[in-house]
Amino acid sequence: MSFDYKIADISLHEAGRHQIRLAEHEMPGLMSLRREYADAQPLAGARIAGSLHMTVQTAVLIETLVALGAQVRWASCNIFSTQDEAAAAVVVGPHGTPENPQGVPVFAWKNETLEDYWWTATQIFAWPGVDRDPAQGANMILDDGGDATLLVHKGAEFEAVGAVPSATADDPHEYTIILQTLRDSLAENPRRWTGIAEQIAGVTEETTTGVNRLYQLAREGELLFPAINVNDSVTKSKFDNKYGIRHSLPDGIMRATDVLIAGKTAVVCGYGDVGKGSAEALRGQGARVVVTEIDPINALQAAMDGYQVARLEDVLESGDIFITTTGGKDIITAEQMQRMKDKAIVGNVGHFDNEIDIAGLERIPGIQNVEIKPQVHEWVFPDTGGRSIIVLSEGRLLNLGNATGHPSFVMSSSFTNQVMAQIELFAKSHKSGYQGPDAYQTEVYVLPKLLDEKVARLHLDALGVKLTELTKEQAEYLGVDVAGPYKPDHYRY
Amino acid sequence: MSFDYKIADISLHEAGRHQIRLAEHEMPGLMSLRREYADAQPLAGARIAGSLHMTVQTAVLIETLVALGAQVRWASCNIFSTQDEAAAAVVVGPHGTPENPQGVPVFAWKNETLEDYWWTATQIFAWPGVDRDPAQGANMILDDGGDATLLVHKGAEFEAVGAVPSATADDPHEYTIILQTLRDSLAENPRRWTGIAEQIAGVTEETTTGVNRLYQLAREGELLFPAINVNDSVTKSKFDNKYGIRHSLPDGIMRATDVLIAGKTAVVCGYGDVGKGSAEALRGQGARVVVTEIDPINALQAAMDGYQVARLEDVLESGDIFITTTGGKDIITAEQMQRMKDKAIVGNVGHFDNEIDIAGLERIPGIQNVEIKPQVHEWVFPDTGGRSIIVLSEGRLLNLGNATGHPSFVMSSSFTNQVMAQIELFAKSHKSGYQGPDAYQTEVYVLPKLLDEKVARLHLDALGVKLTELTKEQAEYLGVDVAGPYKPDHYRY
Amino acid sequence: MSFDYKIADISLHEAGRHQIRLAEHEMPGLMSLRREYADAQPLAGARIAGSLHMTVQTAVLIETLVALGAQVRWASCNIFSTQDEAAAAVVVGPHGTPENPQGVPVFAWKNETLEDYWWTATQIFAWPGVDRDPAQGANMILDDGGDATLLVHKGAEFEAVGAVPSATADDPHEYTIILQTLRDSLAENPRRWTGIAEQIAGVTEETTTGVNRLYQLAREGELLFPAINVNDSVTKSKFDNKYGIRHSLPDGIMRATDVLIAGKTAVVCGYGDVGKGSAEALRGQGARVVVTEIDPINALQAAMDGYQVARLEDVLESGDIFITTTGGKDIITAEQMQRMKDKAIVGNVGHFDNEIDIAGLERIPGIQNVEIKPQVHEWVFPDTGGRSIIVLSEGRLLNLGNATGHPSFVMSSSFTNQVMAQIELFAKSHKSGYQGPDAYQTEVYVLPKLLDEKVARLHLDALGVKLTELTKEQAEYLGVDVAGPYKPDHYRY
Amino acid sequence: MSFDYKIADISLHEAGRHQIRLAEHEMPGLMSLRREYADAQPLAGARIAGSLHMTVQTAVLIETLVALGAQVRWASCNIFSTQDEAAAAVVVGPHGTPENPQGVPVFAWKNETLEDYWWTATQIFAWPGVDRDPAQGANMILDDGGDATLLVHKGAEFEAVGAVPSATADDPHEYTIILQTLRDSLAENPRRWTGIAEQIAGVTEETTTGVNRLYQLAREGELLFPAINVNDSVTKSKFDNKYGIRHSLPDGIMRATDVLIAGKTAVVCGYGDVGKGSAEALRGQGARVVVTEIDPINALQAAMDGYQVARLEDVLESGDIFITTTGGKDIITAEQMQRMKDKAIVGNVGHFDNEIDIAGLERIPGIQNVEIKPQVHEWVFPDTGGRSIIVLSEGRLLNLGNATGHPSFVMSSSFTNQVMAQIELFAKSHKSGYQGPDAYQTEVYVLPKLLDEKVARLHLDALGVKLTELTKEQAEYLGVDVAGPYKPDHYRY
Repeated sequence: MSFDYKIADISLHEAGRHQIRLAEHEMPGLMSLRREYADAQPLAGARIAGSLHMTVQTAVLIETLVALGAQVRWASCNIFSTQDEAAAAVVVGPHGTPENPQGVPVFAWKNETLEDYWWTATQIFAWPGVDRDPAQGANMILDDGGDATLLVHKGAEFEAVGAVPSATADDPHEYTIILQTLRDSLAENPRRWTGIAEQIAGVTEETTTGVNRLYQLAREGELLFPAINVNDSVTKSKFDNKYGIRHSLPDGIMRATDVLIAGKTAVVCGYGDVGKGSAEALRGQGARVVVTEIDPINALQAAMDGYQVARLEDVLESGDIFITTTGGKDIITAEQMQRMKDKAIVGNVGHFDNEIDIAGLERIPGIQNVEIKPQVHEWVFPDTGGRSIIVLSEGRLLNLGNATGHPSFVMSSSFTNQVMAQIELFAKSHKSGYQGPDAYQTEVYVLPKLLDEKVARLHLDALGVKLTELTKEQAEYLGVDVAGPYKPDHYRY
Repeated sequence: MSFDYKIADISLHEAGRHQIRLAEHEMPGLMSLRREYADAQPLAGARIAGSLHMTVQTAVLIETLVALGAQVRWASCNIFSTQDEAAAAVVVGPHGTPENPQGVPVFAWKNETLEDYWWTATQIFAWPGVDRDPAQGANMILDDGGDATLLVHKGAEFEAVGAVPSATADDPHEYTIILQTLRDSLAENPRRWTGIAEQIAGVTEETTTGVNRLYQLAREGELLFPAINVNDSVTKSKFDNKYGIRHSLPDGIMRATDVLIAGKTAVVCGYGDVGKGSAEALRGQGARVVVTEIDPINALQAAMDGYQVARLEDVLESGDIFITTTGGKDIITAEQMQRMKDKAIVGNVGHFDNEIDIAGLERIPGIQNVEIKPQVHEWVFPDTGGRSIIVLSEGRLLNLGNATGHPSFVMSSSFTNQVMAQIELFAKSHKSGYQGPDAYQTEVYVLPKLLDEKVARLHLDALGVKLTELTKEQAEYLGVDVAGPYKPDHYRY
Repeated sequence: MSFDYKIADISLHEAGRHQIRLAEHEMPGLMSLRREYADAQPLAGARIAGSLHMTVQTAVLIETLVALGAQVRWASCNIFSTQDEAAAAVVVGPHGTPENPQGVPVFAWKNETLEDYWWTATQIFAWPGVDRDPAQGANMILDDGGDATLLVHKGAEFEAVGAVPSATADDPHEYTIILQTLRDSLAENPRRWTGIAEQIAGVTEETTTGVNRLYQLAREGELLFPAINVNDSVTKSKFDNKYGIRHSLPDGIMRATDVLIAGKTAVVCGYGDVGKGSAEALRGQGARVVVTEIDPINALQAAMDGYQVARLEDVLESGDIFITTTGGKDIITAEQMQRMKDKAIVGNVGHFDNEIDIAGLERIPGIQNVEIKPQVHEWVFPDTGGRSIIVLSEGRLLNLGNATGHPSFVMSSSFTNQVMAQIELFAKSHKSGYQGPDAYQTEVYVLPKLLDEKVARLHLDALGVKLTELTKEQAEYLGVDVAGPYKPDHYRY
Repeated sequence: MSFDYKIADISLHEAGRHQIRLAEHEMPGLMSLRREYADAQPLAGARIAGSLHMTVQTAVLIETLVALGAQVRWASCNIFSTQDEAAAAVVVGPHGTPENPQGVPVFAWKNETLEDYWWTATQIFAWPGVDRDPAQGANMILDDGGDATLLVHKGAEFEAVGAVPSATADDPHEYTIILQTLRDSLAENPRRWTGIAEQIAGVTEETTTGVNRLYQLAREGELLFPAINVNDSVTKSKFDNKYGIRHSLPDGIMRATDVLIAGKTAVVCGYGDVGKGSAEALRGQGARVVVTEIDPINALQAAMDGYQVARLEDVLESGDIFITTTGGKDIITAEQMQRMKDKAIVGNVGHFDNEIDIAGLERIPGIQNVEIKPQVHEWVFPDTGGRSIIVLSEGRLLNLGNATGHPSFVMSSSFTNQVMAQIELFAKSHKSGYQGPDAYQTEVYVLPKLLDEKVARLHLDALGVKLTELTKEQAEYLGVDVAGPYKPDHYRY
């Protein structure tokens, strides 16, 4: 069988295969699921449209989904985050060759344009035959940030009214491209997304931003299929967000700039899980960390953890490194960047690139943008005798753009949640006709705590952790089962 | 007016007053509530039976309740935790004298017997006239650990059947005393607790153990009045449990033993919030920390935080300091203590003293219990040439028994929640006839997140924290209000 | 034999004996020397005048000296630092009774006056018969801070000219008392100190301040006997100064104030070993630490370790806790304390109490000094509506005044150096006629590195440390002996 | 003027120039010296043979030497450490072009063979005309590890006897190559190295290994010219070794493997400054760190810092990451690597590659060496079902081979010492005829403390450090000058 894909360079597949082999060693949760479900094949019949950074770790995820029976098409959810060798290895597959790839169609390469990006997003839904028969198409989405889900929802919404609106002057540039993508689609097939939406049994969503969108859709009654919020599994949000960033933030800064972090004043905007991991990493490297926060509880946590909590305005001139971690927008404005000291470093590990106002920088007359190396740009302000700041990954996720994202082990934790969520939803979505009392309805769910604990359990051996087992008496005293779950739902870890 | 109380030594009141004045400086949340509600007097009419460690910080809490209009009677919730000078100062009050005390009746002193303890618990319900007319009695409980609530519930339960059962051989010694206390009460007044229970508009509970009991009562349909779970306010559980213990655990160990923590192997049983604070404190002092856990998620957190996670069995011989933080029971058995190295230190900061099997130690034939100083005992094992272990506070909370408990600032955070919860429940309990749609029913609640955020907010200025304010656009983008609350309920901080 | 001593309360001896027994467990270096030299009795014939904080740990030191054959008389080197039960236990001795003490004469009690203090300093030289025959007196000094050495040198100096000068207006109050002490002595015996000085074979000095004085005397040709600088053994200065203070600083602050350290801004003046330990302890408790420094190298170290380095002037208004660690003087002036925020905490762990200008505070008209408890004073500034600061231990060493000083284990390391130094000097001082090529001349020495390494070696087992042994080939490759010493003298650890 | 050089690719010069410009911003010490000595040109007449990792930071060093008047020739001191773009930029110079390079002759490229390496070492002495007239050749050496110095000493030694010996079976392979290099030289010019040695006024040596060799030469009376030990400047050894490695070790591990460090057991062999920085970095990333040590003092420090101290033998099976930091040899043997767990990571940041027995691995029959990517090799043990370990940089310095070495800021501190030392030696070497009483003789020196403090001083502004200035009274009290130096020579920082 020949199949469609678009990647940078298939000849990288061997390098990718080596890395995948090493990553498998670091992803005990996924490898354990492969063993556990080798016979049951719980994803047989699943056709998964995946949109998630196309890294080596994601390759192990994809191949786990396939090992559990799924068919898969994949795009990245970020224009910079693809590791080309991982894409190549996934396309070729463990048993294929470049001439006879036997893996999974991937539509991703490092440094896509926004137009490319939204084209790749459409391709994960372009299953052979789907335009004739939507039932040939995807029946599951695995999403990160919600772009795949957005495309389906917006597509169906515009198809319902038969027209795609024009972008307004206030819309971000990217939205213009989305609209054009859907406009083109509408012209080709006026019921494409409506058909697709009907077939989707559910989506499992990786990250805060996507989850927020899902809850918003649900609140407004516009959600089209059940969703599992993977982000808020403890073994995701408290691990990937915190421990992943603790690794990949300094990794990104170091690879990008080689600047000594020690002795520097590092300003971390936001003290959620990502901010906590960022602050800890930077302090661990000897930086003096200043935190900015809007939420008094998180602010108090930062203070208790020994960080100065200030307003960005008050540390613009003294900060050396500025990192946004918020998921919000306009966290650092162009005007603020103009007030920073010479060669200040600015980067984002939150979500979208609008945390840092790159567009605002571009609008400064006479500003120069010098590429030091890929994903490292020096913006030289006019009439300042060469005063400049260093912007990482053009304001997009620097841990992906300047490094290789979260390491395998934390991604194993996140992705084990993803696979379990896919199994759950595929088996028990009311959209696919499941009628049990535990059927997932068109709402947003989190995984049951016992599965969350299972994800953790699958990662302990690799670290030499020896778990204590409750006696029956102790369990009774605590009012829990010996096998768990051990904590009430509101427990915060 | 003369009133009843029982404390150790009223002449300590001036020393207590000095300490209260300094503590007020460290309790900005409570002081701020005094200013905010000076006119409104929201607790006018409230008669609060309080059972919570009678420390200097609690004195500031009590006087805040009084400043908001309440009448109060108080006991400690632990036989060792009373600071006698605080009790004296509260009884005398800010404007009284030992001869003419104008404060609050307190029934607490350091080093009560268990018999004393349960007697004091009855006294906080012994309002003048209550036996004639329960409506003269307490209408609110402020509880820590649930003993006051237990007394009311058990009292009413036994009154309903008209008899108090005998203790069985398996019951802890303390339960025998509770039963006797209630047996005596039944003889005196066969409807005492039933009457009291009817009058109670609600309870606000401070700690995990008490909260667990409340949820259990609620699940079993036996809860008699609404409850607010103060423990699970973020500004309580994530502050008091973690940051409080981080301070008071090393404080207790140092005061008790003067032993250098650095270089020692410290075993922390449990990695919940208390365990996290314990581990951080001990590592901060240069100990090598080993964690034991039953919950795979917490165990994985401990590993990610760089701690070895082992079973207690495997580190008995190598550990120097053993700290239980679990809320469970039989965490360290007498048999295990016998295997520890000479002069190993054993202490508890979890909840009840059954985390460490002191009773088991006592049963070892020939063992010697040498009091080094109050709350520090050396248990010398027989036939070992003098091999011994050091037990702190007889297995009860060492941070209270060997030091002075959590410091004022964290208690301000906890207690500001308590006061807000008292205000809420007193105003809106269905038990007191409130009919609004937001009436608290006979269930267990947590405080609304906005109040939780308010607690944090009241503590920022004192630490020099400058909060960032969302713009309207940013708030809309995030889908929150500029003034909060900022996070979904499931957010874990 | 009956002997003279002056302590607070001999009835405390049993409590002291318990504590000494536990301390012995934490002082493996000293206990190991007792075993090693049980037969050789290298200090037989030594008459040691000791001046060092009379704590439980010092008791173990004293009894080690005695176990090695020495006769000893002891005073404290600080008016607040004596633990009365330790003094009592030392006087009684392990085998004596209060009625028949068989220990060592001690002249020390908690809270001496300065007059008392200098009287006790004379008593350690007042050996029976010494005034008749100086050869009956002390032949060794064990000093901490150099006061005993000062007394001998100044005494001899004034005796040489036959008169004691008057204090000038600029002299500190304490110097007036020293002069009076010597004036009285001169009247009694015009050759007392001259005789004593001639007999002293050498002094071993514990701390930086004393060492600095010794080097100054040596430089100016005024040193009267050989000296071993124990302070600069690695196992002293890098352990006691850093790790000892890391323990005893938070211990002192906590016992004194119960104030939560977390979230506070703590200003540490000086980033030498004591400052490093202080900063680490405070950060470990969640404080934001700001360092002040005069030395650019230490300042750069502080910056690399992630601390803000500022001038005291710039953080007076924002600091919550101010700790001096410098060994200098006038580090915090009265004028600066007036500018601090309400209830700021001020304390010293450097050396002398002139680091903090208490005398300046006293001179402010209308200021009030309220004793909160012993060693904790609130200085209330006039005309400020009650604004005050909290001063610990009246500006003297707060870790001794508010807590119990360094813990046993670090003191074991320091004191093992002391004992080795006493053995060395007593055996090989040119003053006592030793003629070997390795005779100690009237200069200041440090212990040979191999002995320094031995001190460390004696403390490893207790911590479970397993040392790696060099192979012969590896040792040759490195150019060292398999048994050490391993590092060049200039190595900084 | 055209000149000789050999680098990888001159077209990289622009990329190098960008990086040099950014590095200059991070090297305030060097830039400050350029300003200070712009007029004086203290190195005019100096011809410096430099052997030190040819990185971007070294480029700034080289161009500083040139800015102070020196002529320079350069090689790397490690076959993997050259950054090709830095070499290109230095050759071209700030004002040259690839066609008309106006910079400095460099002989270095990434991934040299050992034969290449020793050829490049000869080239830095191959100044035009030197073979005719040694006075045309180098008169200063700037060395790192001592290879340039070795070449001169061994060359002169063999020329003195007129023959180069054969390597013995025990000699490392590299020594064979050195001998052949010198044998070829002897054939060409039998007095080459003798002549060069006579001209050299002195060497400034960067690192411990080179310094040890220098002291050994001095002890054995074989040193041929004065040397300044730059390594033991505080601002070098305590900064570069500790803070540099704290940055570049995790950087190297992350770039090489993308493996999550958190939760892993990391074994750090050696707890000198490099070991301290390594341990802190790994702990800062959430690893559990185990230290091995031969020196009891360093071992005790590790224990006090909270690390387990064990023998390598005892943690082979439980460790995940093994890092050597010792400067010794045979720290990890092939036999030990065979016992490690699957995919254990092994790397070296000590000095020579013989810390890890790669040669021993190669000798295992049937072992496979798979290159995962450059400098990352998987050694697959035979007959183990694929069990393998990951070796970084073939056992050479991984922070240079897998990352880009120490960051600019710490190198600025080291290199400012280097430049000052070059200025000192060039001006005041007795070898160049200087007769002053402060002439440097043929011995090994460290820089005066005041210069060491100056290096620190030049780096404070960039970090926002505000230094406190002593008053005259305070300085007198301490017995130091207001301007420093502040500490005695034996002070350890």
